[in-house]
Amino acid sequence: MLTPKFDELVKQLQVLPSVGQKSAQRMALHLLGKKRQQGINLANALQIAMLDIKECQRCHSFSDDDICPICCDDRRSDNVLCVVEQASDVIAIEQSGQYRGRYFVLGGHLSPLDGINAQDLNIDELANRLKAESIDELILATSTTMEGQTTAYFIYEIAKTCVPKITRLAQGIPMGGELPYLDGLTLGQALQNRVHF
Amino acid sequence: MLTPKFDELVKQLQVLPSVGQKSAQRMALHLLGKKRQQGINLANALQIAMLDIKECQRCHSFSDDDICPICCDDRRSDNVLCVVEQASDVIAIEQSGQYRGRYFVLGGHLSPLDGINAQDLNIDELANRLKAESIDELILATSTTMEGQTTAYFIYEIAKTCVPKITRLAQGIPMGGELPYLDGLTLGQALQNRVHF
Repeated sequence: MLTPKFDELVKQLQVLPSVGQKSAQRMALHLLGKKRQQGINLANALQIAMLDIKECQRCHSFSDDDICPICCDDRRSDNVLCVVEQASDVIAIEQSGQYRGRYFVLGGHLSPLDGINAQDLNIDELANRLKAESIDELILATSTTMEGQTTAYFIYEIAKTCVPKITRLAQGIPMGGELPYLDGLTLGQALQNRVHF
Repeated sequence: MLTPKFDELVKQLQVLPSVGQKSAQRMALHLLGKKRQQGINLANALQIAMLDIKECQRCHSFSDDDICPICCDDRRSDNVLCVVEQASDVIAIEQSGQYRGRYFVLGGHLSPLDGINAQDLNIDELANRLKAESIDELILATSTTMEGQTTAYFIYEIAKTCVPKITRLAQGIPMGGELPYLDGLTLGQALQNRVHF
């Protein structure tokens, strides 16, 4: 609309999730107006992240080096392993500040209808790791969707012979949840899993 | 949270308008997941735009070169000049597809309370241009805020001796507007400015 370089920036900004033509224009104008240096810093951070960030060879989360900071951290427990679907799940759990074990990222969930089978995920590698290491507790933190639960059962079947304790995240009412606004399934789970006061 | 380079990207993405920590994380994960090449393309477009886009020396809109494509376009009329506050206003008017004259970007609006006076805008340059060129119509397309209207009156006073026709954008009901949802001021203007059916 304005100039070819402006139009190119607006086009490229639309690769970002939930950014359409209008938002991209707003972003471009915002940066061009008074934030040019920040725009350049963003370009550099993007370039570096896209080229340098790789998969951790141990847990398959994102990492700047071959092994990620969480796998390297010797203050964390080697005996507890938390299995998640995506690297974003690692961020979410880390932000809770309640977990000091290791992670293993599957790279997705089983979904035969979409053609995603066990060999498309890092499940073989997980199985080898469970056999080779002495893990006391395996936490199956896949999502509570049908596919996530199926994936958890699949791993449970593999792990039950070599890991003494296999757990999953508690299901129930979220913090701040009000009963009238909760769906029946969640409320049903919360009732079934009720605990002593 | 994950790795220093990831954290840096998340931090830098927050320079974009309405992007906070959570959205920035989502954007970073989205790009790192399966859109790395697009991420690099975005970095390049950003770098080029931030370094190369300058102000058009004639109209003060954004431009890749000293003079912008609109000022260069000899199919556009030299006799009609549209005064706007910002380069983003030029985009908006261009998108309407209804204007084939030239633009002049003031760089803001008069706002003495915020310390923005006539010498902070490109008003002197506009006055010189109005004297030097033969302009048949000057369209004052500043915004319909108090400051925008004040700016328009200020320019009207300067221009009235040298431009035969000075106009402003019509005020009234927007397309698709429903009367019960319109504010009284807009509806009042629409009534005052009513036209023959």
